[in-house]
Amino acid sequence: MPAKFSFQCQAQCSHTQARAGTFHTPHGPVHTPRFMPVGTLANVKTVTPAQLQAAGAEMVLANTYHLHLQPGEDLIAEAGGLHSFMAWPGPILTDSGGFQVFSLSKIRTISEDGVVFRSPRDGRLIEMSPEHSIHIQNQLGADVIMAFDECPPYPADREAVIAATDRTYSWLKRCIQAHQRSDQALFGIVQGGVHLDLRQAAAEQLAQLDLPGYAIGGVSVGEPPELIKKIVKATTPLLPPDRPRYLMGVGTYREMAQAIASGIDLFDCVIPTRLGRHGAALVRGERWNLKNARFRRDLTPMDADCPCYTCQNFSRAYLCHLIHAQELLGYTLISIHNITELIRFTQQIRQAILQDRFAEQFQAWLQPLEKGQSSADLTQSGREA
Amino acid sequence: MPAKFSFQCQAQCSHTQARAGTFHTPHGPVHTPRFMPVGTLANVKTVTPAQLQAAGAEMVLANTYHLHLQPGEDLIAEAGGLHSFMAWPGPILTDSGGFQVFSLSKIRTISEDGVVFRSPRDGRLIEMSPEHSIHIQNQLGADVIMAFDECPPYPADREAVIAATDRTYSWLKRCIQAHQRSDQALFGIVQGGVHLDLRQAAAEQLAQLDLPGYAIGGVSVGEPPELIKKIVKATTPLLPPDRPRYLMGVGTYREMAQAIASGIDLFDCVIPTRLGRHGAALVRGERWNLKNARFRRDLTPMDADCPCYTCQNFSRAYLCHLIHAQELLGYTLISIHNITELIRFTQQIRQAILQDRFAEQFQAWLQPLEKGQSSADLTQSGREA
Repeated sequence: MPAKFSFQCQAQCSHTQARAGTFHTPHGPVHTPRFMPVGTLANVKTVTPAQLQAAGAEMVLANTYHLHLQPGEDLIAEAGGLHSFMAWPGPILTDSGGFQVFSLSKIRTISEDGVVFRSPRDGRLIEMSPEHSIHIQNQLGADVIMAFDECPPYPADREAVIAATDRTYSWLKRCIQAHQRSDQALFGIVQGGVHLDLRQAAAEQLAQLDLPGYAIGGVSVGEPPELIKKIVKATTPLLPPDRPRYLMGVGTYREMAQAIASGIDLFDCVIPTRLGRHGAALVRGERWNLKNARFRRDLTPMDADCPCYTCQNFSRAYLCHLIHAQELLGYTLISIHNITELIRFTQQIRQAILQDRFAEQFQAWLQPLEKGQSSADLTQSGREA
Repeated sequence: MPAKFSFQCQAQCSHTQARAGTFHTPHGPVHTPRFMPVGTLANVKTVTPAQLQAAGAEMVLANTYHLHLQPGEDLIAEAGGLHSFMAWPGPILTDSGGFQVFSLSKIRTISEDGVVFRSPRDGRLIEMSPEHSIHIQNQLGADVIMAFDECPPYPADREAVIAATDRTYSWLKRCIQAHQRSDQALFGIVQGGVHLDLRQAAAEQLAQLDLPGYAIGGVSVGEPPELIKKIVKATTPLLPPDRPRYLMGVGTYREMAQAIASGIDLFDCVIPTRLGRHGAALVRGERWNLKNARFRRDLTPMDADCPCYTCQNFSRAYLCHLIHAQELLGYTLISIHNITELIRFTQQIRQAILQDRFAEQFQAWLQPLEKGQSSADLTQSGREA
């Protein structure tokens, strides 16, 4: 682990693998378990940094692929890096762009060397290799940077997943070689699709590389939530206990609670802002469509116990009015609440772990969803695209 | 003037009719001259009340016509009025809806009694009369409410303007009769088109009614800015000096400075948020399109001297990036700056008046625009629609 980083485990649940820790970065601590808001294009959609801080955000994400296409890493480096460019004083994590290259681009060629794709913005050919991704991330200057991986789609046949997992490993070694900055921690990513044996082999292989942190990638790409749970449960215990563990693209109540029970520390998901821009709120584990007629004359706050700016100042009827009128302020106010809500959920879990009451207090979330039971969870991917 | 209202003049310019005053309302003072942001649908587009307060806003507008159509004045009354519904603790002014009825609706009949029009939302027939507008405004509960007037278009022939001006006067008397609340101040509106003699006659007629405040309406509807100046100069001195004077729908630098020189105290305009949503900023009297390539790599703030959240935290290049990426946060950040900018402009004028240096310091703004000189002023209407 680079000198400017450390991970301390403050408490370990006596019934599950859940743990409460602190991940120290050059831009401050991240108290885990913790949900991280996604700011793909160097901004969390509709929310200012000041509002993010008030929502309890510690580490936020940005995306290498998107920022490379626009405005370009050179400009951001010239601005003094992402922290200065987007005015976020806390820790930042950049995703490597692997997921986006494979999910968003019209790929021209993929080889051991890297990927050549056409920019969806202007059609120009772009090469992305492990070295290139790390170079861009070194320029962007986030506290945590991610290895450039090949993320197989779901479903994919076993042979294709094996090839992608092997390539992810050899690319990881090149990422480690290419990485230049000691003030940035490079996390490795466990791939392996839905094949538990491939996942476990990959986790064991990565664990030997003594990286400052580990991620489980390639989930939340369309597979059933129960599969995510199985993958996380089989993989997480194989990762070094003294390093932070990050489950990529997951940020729904049940999936987070269950992953925490397996020892995951960090989460990210586009859900809070994506739902916000559709007028949908996450409230006490439910998903509410604020456009619904039942909110039209409801003058109570969304959640009287929620400390967020939205719940402290506005009624459901007011939000319903803004959403009906397509006022952008409505998207901002609901996004603020949704981000606060998911961060608070992980904060409450952290408190429960510190008191060793997690398994008891969050029992309902640790059960599988019963048949016919509705869930706030999105069936679509929670990964940023 | 109702007991809960008062207007004190603190300073009078020795070279012009400009004055610095304080208009006291049940929800706090308004230090004049002052620009008022427009929150048509009970929200200032893309900006939270907390951000509005930080921008220096004192009184904000909302609109009777729009709020009657959605969500309805009953709901807002049930919420405890507009202040509570939109979480704005300061003074609020509601426009009567006259302008919108005449400019936005497909009018079915117009008579001495009132106007019948089809709702552009759902096609139902709606009647709006002076009594109805005042009843709605009594329900909404703003500090200042406006008389229901007939606003003739520009251009309009003299006979039509005379008829509209006469009707505005007879409707005003009905508004005064209908008005029920002593915690709301009813302002009269001077009409008269671009005909100075009609304007002056209307102003003299209204002045005799001893109203708590007076507005000049029917400007900024497409006529050249020079005509606004002439109308204001001819009309304002005829309004009672101990009452606030409000120039409706005007909020550009030059037009505000010149109207202040004629004795106007209050302004409103949709410009700051409308420009913000188009990625355009008002900076030191100029209008900048942040999408312009010249800002792409410009890492300085829009205005280093501007105290707004946007200028204190973000560069031109960052805003350019957000606007190119169509990120809604860009519209919010530019709107925050634009609102701050126009309020600051009126605050700086107020300070200059208090030191009796207005005519000297703002000399450049008091000159007519030279031929070929570009202006930040919109040629289109600054009225909310």
